[in-house]
Amino acid sequence: MVAEIICVGTELLLGDIVNTNAQFLSRELAELGVTVLHQHVVGDNPDRLRALVQEAKGRSDLLVFSGGLGPTADDLTKETVAQAFGDTLRFDEAEWQKIVAFFARTGRAPTQNNRKQAMVPVRGRKLPNAHGTAPGAWFEDEAGHAAALLPGVPREMKAMWAEDVRPLLEARQNCTIRSMTLRVLGGESSIASKVAPLFESANPTAAIYCKVGESEIRVTARAATAAEAEAACRARVAEFQKILGDSAYDVDVPGLAHTVVRLLRERGLQAATAESCTGGLVAQLLTEVPGASEVFGYGFVTYAAAAKTRLLGVDPALIDRYNVVSAPVAAAMARGALAASGAGLSVALTGLAGPGGALPGKPVGTVYLAGADARSGRVQVMRLDLGGYRDRGVIRQRAALYALDLLRRMALGLPMEGAVTLKPGQPAPEL
Amino acid sequence: MVAEIICVGTELLLGDIVNTNAQFLSRELAELGVTVLHQHVVGDNPDRLRALVQEAKGRSDLLVFSGGLGPTADDLTKETVAQAFGDTLRFDEAEWQKIVAFFARTGRAPTQNNRKQAMVPVRGRKLPNAHGTAPGAWFEDEAGHAAALLPGVPREMKAMWAEDVRPLLEARQNCTIRSMTLRVLGGESSIASKVAPLFESANPTAAIYCKVGESEIRVTARAATAAEAEAACRARVAEFQKILGDSAYDVDVPGLAHTVVRLLRERGLQAATAESCTGGLVAQLLTEVPGASEVFGYGFVTYAAAAKTRLLGVDPALIDRYNVVSAPVAAAMARGALAASGAGLSVALTGLAGPGGALPGKPVGTVYLAGADARSGRVQVMRLDLGGYRDRGVIRQRAALYALDLLRRMALGLPMEGAVTLKPGQPAPEL
Repeated sequence: MVAEIICVGTELLLGDIVNTNAQFLSRELAELGVTVLHQHVVGDNPDRLRALVQEAKGRSDLLVFSGGLGPTADDLTKETVAQAFGDTLRFDEAEWQKIVAFFARTGRAPTQNNRKQAMVPVRGRKLPNAHGTAPGAWFEDEAGHAAALLPGVPREMKAMWAEDVRPLLEARQNCTIRSMTLRVLGGESSIASKVAPLFESANPTAAIYCKVGESEIRVTARAATAAEAEAACRARVAEFQKILGDSAYDVDVPGLAHTVVRLLRERGLQAATAESCTGGLVAQLLTEVPGASEVFGYGFVTYAAAAKTRLLGVDPALIDRYNVVSAPVAAAMARGALAASGAGLSVALTGLAGPGGALPGKPVGTVYLAGADARSGRVQVMRLDLGGYRDRGVIRQRAALYALDLLRRMALGLPMEGAVTLKPGQPAPEL
Repeated sequence: MVAEIICVGTELLLGDIVNTNAQFLSRELAELGVTVLHQHVVGDNPDRLRALVQEAKGRSDLLVFSGGLGPTADDLTKETVAQAFGDTLRFDEAEWQKIVAFFARTGRAPTQNNRKQAMVPVRGRKLPNAHGTAPGAWFEDEAGHAAALLPGVPREMKAMWAEDVRPLLEARQNCTIRSMTLRVLGGESSIASKVAPLFESANPTAAIYCKVGESEIRVTARAATAAEAEAACRARVAEFQKILGDSAYDVDVPGLAHTVVRLLRERGLQAATAESCTGGLVAQLLTEVPGASEVFGYGFVTYAAAAKTRLLGVDPALIDRYNVVSAPVAAAMARGALAASGAGLSVALTGLAGPGGALPGKPVGTVYLAGADARSGRVQVMRLDLGGYRDRGVIRQRAALYALDLLRRMALGLPMEGAVTLKPGQPAPEL
């Protein structure tokens, strides 16, 4: 099946907003095994829209629209597509009552214009919108071409896609689709080289998406039943996990902080953070997770050297001797955070996020990471400058991700590559 | 002038990446007074590309391409567009030497395929790429139609747009363009109602972009000379500032934290933060700004009640009596941060970011904000739930923005709407 995506909206043509709907729909269609050869954006202009629909219908089996379902007079997408598919529209009393009720909930009354939002296909079908006023529409012609019309608001569009359009397309393709997202620490190229053969498979498919310091591997299985698709998906994810080892940290989570909070909660552990170069980013990531208060109570942002001494008890002589950006100071910060908070685990970061501040032998991107618990400590040096490209934000994000990974590894008792282990009280070496 | 944007790339059709290039180019063209009626995405397929180019050229004066300039055999955008514009390509030795040198810098050698990247228009002109290997191209036909070909990598594309294409288009339109971005605290609707007439103007134009808790107003002036455009832009920005007052906080900055760091530095002030519900976000925003260490040394993330007592000296009796989410505790946190850090200014936040944890009379979205300096304190309660829509991330972001605004207002001696002023030692009221 070949599809095109048509997004309708002046705000897209003016560059007021970025077109995330096209990305979402493209990825979903790819997972369904549908080939997308064109994406378009047009304004609310019936002539241009009509010309585009005719042309797209001539070369593609499925047209997916977002936007253009609003109440104003220029919103003529539904009328235009109905005509192209030889269908007409009728007023739907039930949809109208939903619109009236929707307005009533927010203390307003619908206008006469809103009545056109209650128009639905006569031969095609309406697509209910549980999150907004405008229902979507599905049109089909005798030749088997189809069109799905969805609202432009991403939240409404995504919900209607998942609830209505995707099942329709699965039925057309006689299959069920299940996707899982494996999250893996490390860059796309290092990961892809290890698991390249698994990306060649036609079913389940796998795609890799690169993020800062980590990657997502999205596995999608198609099968006759949901249970088979689910099983195929799980089996393929397990193959990835086996090859990638403990760098594959979780499945279907928004990010590493969620995994860390879950692991700490499961083990009844409390963590504390001591941050210099990341300036609160690790604490912020942990507390983004609902329920973080069960596992995190104390975060120290010791951006000044004096703060490291005053809040974490770092010996000023250590700072004088090794500099604040050093392994001994990172280790002392982690131990100090443990003592000052009473937590069972701690992580500490001190480094050079740039753009200025490079030291002899310590270029921008040099970051020291330490962790401590009652039994031991770990400390390591990281070079986070990406082959000469030094971006303050990226260095901070990557450093924070490593700190979260260290918390994960301490909670699970896993080793951390490149880290030196310290016994309680043992001074950290220069690294 | 009417333009269309054509983005070439399979990764866009698969939904691997979001099309930020289309947004950037649309906005730039709008500022130049060029009307964009269509955006397209196509793959690296010469037939489909040729059909699209013919069609687009038939209805638009200018085609702007991004992507498709890579070294692989399917990257045929340059050849296809050259043909449509009656031009041919020649091998450019100088561009080839740049490519060779670029590879040498990263320790690699170019392949034979890279030679096609050194092909440039015979009649049109090449667009130099200072940030990557592939030069862009500019084609023109006798009828005055033009095409600009830019790489798909956003950093390269944006630089080449600013350095080459934009000046060419300004010259075509006999004008110079200057834009300035005014940043304003508050929502789009409350701002737009105050300054609506200024958005009607044809030159300078103004557009408003809504962000979390604030908006950007982008003013664009067109004039015969750069100095005139600059002056018209400044004058219009001043009109906006006059109407919007101190909610318009700065011009051409990435965000409020940059303004706060600059103001604190100018005044020789040090700030400290004490955060509960935002969990380090305020500290993180401040330290994102290069040079923040001059004005920020201490951040306290006191997520647990005990941390508020242990690190900030908040009286446990106060917590028992009023709850940790209360004005008296926020005020005590701000005072405690001042004492524990030696800073001249402090801000503190305690609130309910959700999703759980609502208290009687304190729904999710209730956040208490306090500030302190040696002479006085301020405290206020905020309802950040956006009419029933409670998003943990949005509540935290809005709370952090208010905290930064309080720092700004304390540094400038401006009042904060809704805040109660406290004398040193005066207990904070329940709010």
